[in-house]
Amino acid sequence: MFTKYLKRALLIALALLPTLMTAQLKQFTLDDLMWGGSNYWNLQPKNLYTAWWGDNLMQLEVEEVKQLANAKGKLLKEPAVLFTDDDVNAALDVEKYGKVRNLLNANFPVAGETVAEFNTGKYLVRYDWTKKQIVWTLALPAGIPEGGVARASKCVAYLKDWNLFVQKADGTVSQISTDGSREMQYGLSVHRDEFGIHNGLFWSPKGNLLAFYKMDQTMVTDFPLVDNSPRVATLAPEKYPMAGMTSHKVWVGVYNPATDKTVYLQTGDNTDRYFTNVAWSPDEQTVYVIEVPRSQDKSELVAYDATTGARKQVLYTEINDRYVEPMTPIQFLPWDDTKFIYQSRRDGYNHLYLFDTTGKELAQLTKGNFEVIDVLGFNEKAKSIIYKSNEALPIRHNYYSVDVKTLKRTLLDNGKGVHSARLSASGAYLCDTWRAPGVYRQVDLLSTTKPSAITLHEAGTPWAGYNVPEFSCGTIKAADDSTDLYFRMVKPVNFDPAKKYPAVVYVYGGPHAHNVDESWNYAARPWEIYMAQKGYLIFVVDNRGSQYRGFEFESCTHRRLGVVEMEDQLKGVEYLKSLPYVDADRLGVHGWSFGGFMTTNLMCSYPDMFKVGVAGGPVIDWKLYEVMYGERYMDTPQENPEGYEGSNLLNKAKNLKGRLQIIVGYNDPTCILQHSLSFLRAAADAGTQPDYFVYSGQGHNMMGKDMVHLHERITRYFEDYLK
Amino acid sequence: MFTKYLKRALLIALALLPTLMTAQLKQFTLDDLMWGGSNYWNLQPKNLYTAWWGDNLMQLEVEEVKQLANAKGKLLKEPAVLFTDDDVNAALDVEKYGKVRNLLNANFPVAGETVAEFNTGKYLVRYDWTKKQIVWTLALPAGIPEGGVARASKCVAYLKDWNLFVQKADGTVSQISTDGSREMQYGLSVHRDEFGIHNGLFWSPKGNLLAFYKMDQTMVTDFPLVDNSPRVATLAPEKYPMAGMTSHKVWVGVYNPATDKTVYLQTGDNTDRYFTNVAWSPDEQTVYVIEVPRSQDKSELVAYDATTGARKQVLYTEINDRYVEPMTPIQFLPWDDTKFIYQSRRDGYNHLYLFDTTGKELAQLTKGNFEVIDVLGFNEKAKSIIYKSNEALPIRHNYYSVDVKTLKRTLLDNGKGVHSARLSASGAYLCDTWRAPGVYRQVDLLSTTKPSAITLHEAGTPWAGYNVPEFSCGTIKAADDSTDLYFRMVKPVNFDPAKKYPAVVYVYGGPHAHNVDESWNYAARPWEIYMAQKGYLIFVVDNRGSQYRGFEFESCTHRRLGVVEMEDQLKGVEYLKSLPYVDADRLGVHGWSFGGFMTTNLMCSYPDMFKVGVAGGPVIDWKLYEVMYGERYMDTPQENPEGYEGSNLLNKAKNLKGRLQIIVGYNDPTCILQHSLSFLRAAADAGTQPDYFVYSGQGHNMMGKDMVHLHERITRYFEDYLK
Repeated sequence: MFTKYLKRALLIALALLPTLMTAQLKQFTLDDLMWGGSNYWNLQPKNLYTAWWGDNLMQLEVEEVKQLANAKGKLLKEPAVLFTDDDVNAALDVEKYGKVRNLLNANFPVAGETVAEFNTGKYLVRYDWTKKQIVWTLALPAGIPEGGVARASKCVAYLKDWNLFVQKADGTVSQISTDGSREMQYGLSVHRDEFGIHNGLFWSPKGNLLAFYKMDQTMVTDFPLVDNSPRVATLAPEKYPMAGMTSHKVWVGVYNPATDKTVYLQTGDNTDRYFTNVAWSPDEQTVYVIEVPRSQDKSELVAYDATTGARKQVLYTEINDRYVEPMTPIQFLPWDDTKFIYQSRRDGYNHLYLFDTTGKELAQLTKGNFEVIDVLGFNEKAKSIIYKSNEALPIRHNYYSVDVKTLKRTLLDNGKGVHSARLSASGAYLCDTWRAPGVYRQVDLLSTTKPSAITLHEAGTPWAGYNVPEFSCGTIKAADDSTDLYFRMVKPVNFDPAKKYPAVVYVYGGPHAHNVDESWNYAARPWEIYMAQKGYLIFVVDNRGSQYRGFEFESCTHRRLGVVEMEDQLKGVEYLKSLPYVDADRLGVHGWSFGGFMTTNLMCSYPDMFKVGVAGGPVIDWKLYEVMYGERYMDTPQENPEGYEGSNLLNKAKNLKGRLQIIVGYNDPTCILQHSLSFLRAAADAGTQPDYFVYSGQGHNMMGKDMVHLHERITRYFEDYLK
Repeated sequence: MFTKYLKRALLIALALLPTLMTAQLKQFTLDDLMWGGSNYWNLQPKNLYTAWWGDNLMQLEVEEVKQLANAKGKLLKEPAVLFTDDDVNAALDVEKYGKVRNLLNANFPVAGETVAEFNTGKYLVRYDWTKKQIVWTLALPAGIPEGGVARASKCVAYLKDWNLFVQKADGTVSQISTDGSREMQYGLSVHRDEFGIHNGLFWSPKGNLLAFYKMDQTMVTDFPLVDNSPRVATLAPEKYPMAGMTSHKVWVGVYNPATDKTVYLQTGDNTDRYFTNVAWSPDEQTVYVIEVPRSQDKSELVAYDATTGARKQVLYTEINDRYVEPMTPIQFLPWDDTKFIYQSRRDGYNHLYLFDTTGKELAQLTKGNFEVIDVLGFNEKAKSIIYKSNEALPIRHNYYSVDVKTLKRTLLDNGKGVHSARLSASGAYLCDTWRAPGVYRQVDLLSTTKPSAITLHEAGTPWAGYNVPEFSCGTIKAADDSTDLYFRMVKPVNFDPAKKYPAVVYVYGGPHAHNVDESWNYAARPWEIYMAQKGYLIFVVDNRGSQYRGFEFESCTHRRLGVVEMEDQLKGVEYLKSLPYVDADRLGVHGWSFGGFMTTNLMCSYPDMFKVGVAGGPVIDWKLYEVMYGERYMDTPQENPEGYEGSNLLNKAKNLKGRLQIIVGYNDPTCILQHSLSFLRAAADAGTQPDYFVYSGQGHNMMGKDMVHLHERITRYFEDYLK
């Protein structure tokens, strides 16, 4: 009798053991995990902040700067403090120039000189740590947009009341435009930041000429956004050209501070044309623009005379039935002013091509079933290009060099994980920060010419003592039965394969983004960890239509967004259902933006598949989305009425059976409120019952503390209806 | 053994019996119950449509008209069809005048003549059923606001592009205003429909002069409402003067069609003044206006010369520390052009006072702890006034006459229930439609001089065969421990006093409305029946601050809306908790508009009392509410900062613990979107989690089919979280 009880007690104790062990492990809160959470920064590991001074690697801290390695790539044995913030401020007329509060953003503009540059907010100042003196200053007027400062010529372009001004080296100011307004913009990004455009000011290499964008939006419909924060809410309209509707017009001007003259590039009628990827020739004589007609089925690299604005030559034309999407300006070889690199996906993957300035194509520099992700720079001595690609594996991002003569490609880093590096002045060294499933963050010093790696920093897990779930990665076949799709799985904490868990699919699924790579925890998002802790299995698969898998993979969705993407997501669900530990009756789905479109679409197209969905900032009707992005993937509503109707979720609102919460930022200028409101309207008309929430004052993505609130909200919804 | 099983089987059968019986009864759907539901009209009982022709009572049907009773109040034995729609249309030049499609809206304008009047949409036409001829027509231009037609003079006032025009008897048209716009309105209601104002055109008794409102809103802030129904959402701004902010200016003009001249009443500076209850003297020489300053602590009855606009005399002034709220224009005695009735709550209840045109107060005509609800008209021969009051019981509305000389009051109807009547031309008879707890709808023919009642129509219950819950009514003491508050209770269907039921409090609680009266089912709302069917007990109590209980009862909430109201609601909760069949752990609350304010306030002020709340179109911050209503009850934010802060639910959002869903019409021009959005913002900032839903295209109250959707939504919320 006694032994029987003892046995039973033992069994109970053993059964409780995992629970007891777990109890000792800490649980994450959303305040720990989410950017914007009150404890977020306390759970971030120490970082190593570095900057290049020529080929010397510097270590930056808030209050001091040290040299870590010399120009030969050798670590200094005992790195000495070169200067402190107090040193800089002691040398600085703080009253006049402002104070340097932080050395983390120091840069070292001249390779041979012991000079560091800082931004005080009012001035750029350069401090010579040998002389202990301020040796250079540049006043920063208010309203400088990105690209406004030309250090070489000490000219600064800035905006005041929507008009463009240039402060010259002697401090005098010229006004470039007089009719600037919200509707007539100067010096700002155009075409709603598509085609890689993110700014509107482009100083020539020596700072002698300023190319700038001008955009007339008077003919574009205003979308009536409302700002609810004042005493009485006020209109804050957003010029929003919708698919198929009248778009803005853009010019590229060139201003010469020496003559105070502005010429505009003679593009001809600029109606329904995109002027993208502005670049300068090294001699400052030519401005290059990649021009795309509104149909987006063509791109032309065009050279313009910077002095007269005359259209000189179309150097290269690319045509594609679906779309051409130039994302990168041309880049000249530093050792040959007659040759430049052009990036194109014309062979199916993004690759580098070498052209000369006559337009002659000299070579395809990279080739293969992989994508060049980023050209980091050049090793001038070795005549090589340093770039990042996913050649090793679609979910890896590694650095390579390619020899421009031999076309030999060399892997520069360890070939694992996801890398992000900065190149030294000569291009001889890389300061390489990388992550991988087992590596939170490591910083290595690499050579671009020989195999060598010195580890500078290893951040251990920031989550010691926490109950961290298991992350895994794998592939499934797409709905075409041949393409590999990469997935990430986050298992519930204290995973027991004999149990049945509810599972939530997180999805994005659109172009220009991916969710799964070989980063820390396979790039799992903090919320997935939180959900795993609550007992959910999270599954994320990058369907066809998403990023870095080549043109066919991305563009097979053309004119019918959502169809192929959902087919692939269903393959993911099929896989999930095949797992004995997944409860097929408790599947949820969540996504934001394009992922909100996918979530709503999945909930309404397969109403019996998912019990619960949360769709953030969803596109509901592509007619309500903007011209550039929308027409690239869908053509215009006039050209593709079936495609627009087929992807219009207003037509599917009637099918909703599960619980779907739509969450949006009330002031979203990207995916306007009309999407969600129209869906609620259609659902009410059809008698279905989605749920809804809005964050007043937020845009397309939630910022700050609202991220915690939002994810508490999302979690609660699954807890209410999926648990 | 056998008997034991038999007994058990019997017991089971008995236990199942109510269920079995219930199963035979039909269940209501929201489509059955709700206005806007697809089956709503099928569950409405037949009505009796009547109209007075002098003192003869006519019965109207869609296609025919009969006489029911003669001018002596005697029923005709065999009512003959006097005419049909075909008769009318046969006599009508349909091409020119349009067609009469329905006889239900016929009226009989001349007591002695066999003439019926119809509106074809294009014309008013009068048909003589003896002559079988059209004997009179009046063209109706587009854009006639309420009060635009003067039958006596055959003049018609109408609006075109915001300007006021008058079509005269000879068909000629005069333009009265030229600067009309959304900001400068003519002929429309002013002061946002407060003070009983609902139209802006007032023809003099003989139709010789037109008094009209003019309102300048240029100085009023526009609230940026957005219309989401077009291809691209557009701004649909609403002039919305918020408490404490700049308000509009109003004039009263008098236009004379004979001279084509307009004079404006010489009111002096009209800044921050309300011009209410416009009335004419029988001789058309004087216009009476009840004037209220923005502070609303005074009202003045002012006489103006209709010809010159000169301010002649202040006839009566009333002052009240809290507020004076004139709701009814003066009414002249038909038999004495020198005397009129003035309605006032100066003795604590709304009563009738007799004045002469010199301003001399002659008598208080009604007196007592009850409210005069409506003056229906006069019996000229008997020199009595026919009015409705709740003298019999606060929750009853009955008709009385008062003899102007003797002040003797006589109950005219059965003294039960809630009545709504029409008076015959001489005032001798009433056609009285009434409801009471056991009476769905009954129509009686009453005399205003002697006790007599002929039942014309009895509508049986429309719900035979349905599982109808039990309705009851009672009183509890208010939080002052002395005032009686009336409540209604709807018990769950198949009520079992041994069970514990979840209970939902439905609340309005603000002025100008009440929820409980002695109507059919004590005025239970259809949704309450639906909820009773789902197993909830519904409880509704009219707290202090609500309608028809006198000035002190209503105005004790002054400067601190919500405080006393909630105290009284808590007494209701206390009562509920005392009932053995109420589950005190499962209490919910729901209300709309002021009731949405109450619901949100209760959820946030007593976070442990209610588990679930649904607040529709709530006021959140009285600063965001309009000038007229808001400042009457709260004074201005400048005058009463503590009151505004204390009632500001933004300060209480942090307390929310239960589940609260806020539901609003996106295009609500009354309680603007900023209320709910600000609350969500405050909740997100404080880390609490209300839920939300919006109906795009709907205003302050949902219309049509959305009513069904809304109540499905509300019900689902309680089912999700309270069941």
